Amino acid sequence: MSEVRQKAALAKQASAVMNSLTTEQKNDALRLMADALVKEQQSIIQANHNDIARGRENGTSESLLDRLALNENRIADIAQGLRQIVELSDPVGRILEQFDRPNGLRVEKISVPLGVIGMIYEARPNVTVDAAGLCLKTGNAVVLRGGSAALHSNRRIVEVLREALSHSDMPLEALQLIEDADRASVDEMLKLNGLLDVVIPRGGASLIRNVVANATVPVIETGAGICHTYVDESAELEMASNIAFNAKVQRPSVCNSMETLLVHESFAANHLRVIANRFLAANVAIHGCSRTMSLIPEAEAATDQDYATEYNDYILNIRIVANIEEALMHISQFGTQHSECIVTENAGHAARFLQSVDAAAVYHNASTRFTDGFEFGFGAEIGISTQKLHARGPMGLPALTSTKYRIYGTGQIRG
Amino acid sequence: MSEVRQKAALAKQASAVMNSLTTEQKNDALRLMADALVKEQQSIIQANHNDIARGRENGTSESLLDRLALNENRIADIAQGLRQIVELSDPVGRILEQFDRPNGLRVEKISVPLGVIGMIYEARPNVTVDAAGLCLKTGNAVVLRGGSAALHSNRRIVEVLREALSHSDMPLEALQLIEDADRASVDEMLKLNGLLDVVIPRGGASLIRNVVANATVPVIETGAGICHTYVDESAELEMASNIAFNAKVQRPSVCNSMETLLVHESFAANHLRVIANRFLAANVAIHGCSRTMSLIPEAEAATDQDYATEYNDYILNIRIVANIEEALMHISQFGTQHSECIVTENAGHAARFLQSVDAAAVYHNASTRFTDGFEFGFGAEIGISTQKLHARGPMGLPALTSTKYRIYGTGQIRG
Repeated sequence: MSEVRQKAALAKQASAVMNSLTTEQKNDALRLMADALVKEQQSIIQANHNDIARGRENGTSESLLDRLALNENRIADIAQGLRQIVELSDPVGRILEQFDRPNGLRVEKISVPLGVIGMIYEARPNVTVDAAGLCLKTGNAVVLRGGSAALHSNRRIVEVLREALSHSDMPLEALQLIEDADRASVDEMLKLNGLLDVVIPRGGASLIRNVVANATVPVIETGAGICHTYVDESAELEMASNIAFNAKVQRPSVCNSMETLLVHESFAANHLRVIANRFLAANVAIHGCSRTMSLIPEAEAATDQDYATEYNDYILNIRIVANIEEALMHISQFGTQHSECIVTENAGHAARFLQSVDAAAVYHNASTRFTDGFEFGFGAEIGISTQKLHARGPMGLPALTSTKYRIYGTGQIRG
Repeated sequence: MSEVRQKAALAKQASAVMNSLTTEQKNDALRLMADALVKEQQSIIQANHNDIARGRENGTSESLLDRLALNENRIADIAQGLRQIVELSDPVGRILEQFDRPNGLRVEKISVPLGVIGMIYEARPNVTVDAAGLCLKTGNAVVLRGGSAALHSNRRIVEVLREALSHSDMPLEALQLIEDADRASVDEMLKLNGLLDVVIPRGGASLIRNVVANATVPVIETGAGICHTYVDESAELEMASNIAFNAKVQRPSVCNSMETLLVHESFAANHLRVIANRFLAANVAIHGCSRTMSLIPEAEAATDQDYATEYNDYILNIRIVANIEEALMHISQFGTQHSECIVTENAGHAARFLQSVDAAAVYHNASTRFTDGFEFGFGAEIGISTQKLHARGPMGLPALTSTKYRIYGTGQIRG
């Protein structure tokens, strides 16, 4: 039996126990995990040095090496993250609905763990701990498949966490790490129907595309975001400028940052120059429609390909539109249903935009950067779902649960 | 462009309008659809005769031809089904959550249509109307792909329904029928990410397996059910006998019927003979474990393959177990997480069974046949989900909705 299938089977066995742990048992296990990470930090940092050294040999960029690197401060932060998960309320075991039928049957709908979650992610080793903590807190078993660049770090981290679990009521087999660095191990995970209940990819666009294209296990798709800010005719200049600037520049590399600014033509005639100056001063390259180019000579021509690109970088498309309809059409054509914003003082336009734009999060007069589990007050974030099934937008702990019906009878049969 | 892609694109365009129809506009459209079916029934029956004639030429069994056949009574029932959907409350546009953040942002979570639903189903033409009614009522556009055996009927029905929609506020393009009878048209639907938001298969096991194996569009899996009834030591004989008999015999062809009866050894020693007699009198063939065979000589030997088979027929596996643990292990090994029942007077055993069995519906002292949207009081049933994501168990109208977050700001940006 392959490593993947064997570990998934162990996780599935463990999930039967996980399902009936109390909140306190789960929290105790998470606290032991946090303590162990700090206690064993030297061996983790040692393992991480191996990853860093190998990455440097392979010519990995310094910025990627920095994302990969662990030190005492970072491990303390990671352990602190686990302790924060302990504080969150347990979404499992809630009675979500309850009703009696005319035949006397009592029906209860209860929240339960999903079962076994497959997590497929890239290099940052903090995701290993974060994903483990979120899945175990919600009573799920988890099969982790991290990027090969962090394999030594992940292996040592999971050893430490499993050692900690062996002193808890939680079965250590509920936490599995796939060590096979071959891409085939991912492909095998994606087809493990019956052992995995869901696969959640966390990472770049190509990782997610591969998972969506090849999984037969249900997937929660996360990540891609081509987000727009539409500045309407009646927008206040300062507010519009601040929101647009924040949405692009505060952290361009993330999915809820803006890629395209849509501007009403009369607002553009009066104010686009001053807004563009602010972007240019922040070294943001502007790709513009022809009308934008006539107002902002520094812009280069934007193509449809540009409008369909998630830059994740200091590049911004600007398109001038005649009215809100044109803005809505552009978003419908190029948006990825992630986060979309209108800046306007016109309440009717705001209501129309929020009603008709089909996206996980639609904003009136606020930056799209707020699409985030922590910003929404969930206390955690598994990811931001960009699909419409199961969960949409920022996912907190309840996104890692399913439901079951319990039916209490006194001998009822169907007539 | 292929028929499939072209019609899905039209449906997607229409879904933007569907999304903002009022409940009354949707109900008016459904009423017009119901009226039109009755008014045009002769042409529908005519088209149905073509399907029946072709089926008879192809050697289709009389029981399948009966499922395919339409007459005035059946069309009246189908139209009545649409009128019942009108009466159901609209799950779209509800504020599911609402909270204010410390920075002043107001966040609302609203129920919205899924968007465009692909329905892939087999021969019964009533599914065409039922699926259309459920999807349109929930503000979704729908692309129907019925079985080729019902193509003439489906084509005429959809013509009639679209004609009715042309007199309503609902865009007729929200209702699409794929007429291409080639299997390739199904495969194409399964990969239409970006046009279809979800695919729902309704039909036999091989249809569903194909959809799950090949879809890249998210799927709601329905259907397969290997359901068990466990009769515990303390069960009351009459109740146990009635529940087991009902679960197997009342309608063996459906997914919530019982395939395997698990019986505690001391109950079996006293009562299995009388229960088995009742099944045998109803022409149910018994496949039994070795201990069952020694008590019930009429039984033939049950294999693991039998335990893993959804008979949908007058065949029953009986296995004698030493205790509840053995029953739980059997269900964990062979169950399909659909519907499972314990018959017992022991409250502790009942609680343990309902807690630890991982299934969409778990019963204490009632027949598994109640796993059904109508029996649960939902007033409709899209199907019974056997997966854990999005919806589990009988699905009513809310299963055809997603959510979006609306965020109201006053210029907030992220720090």
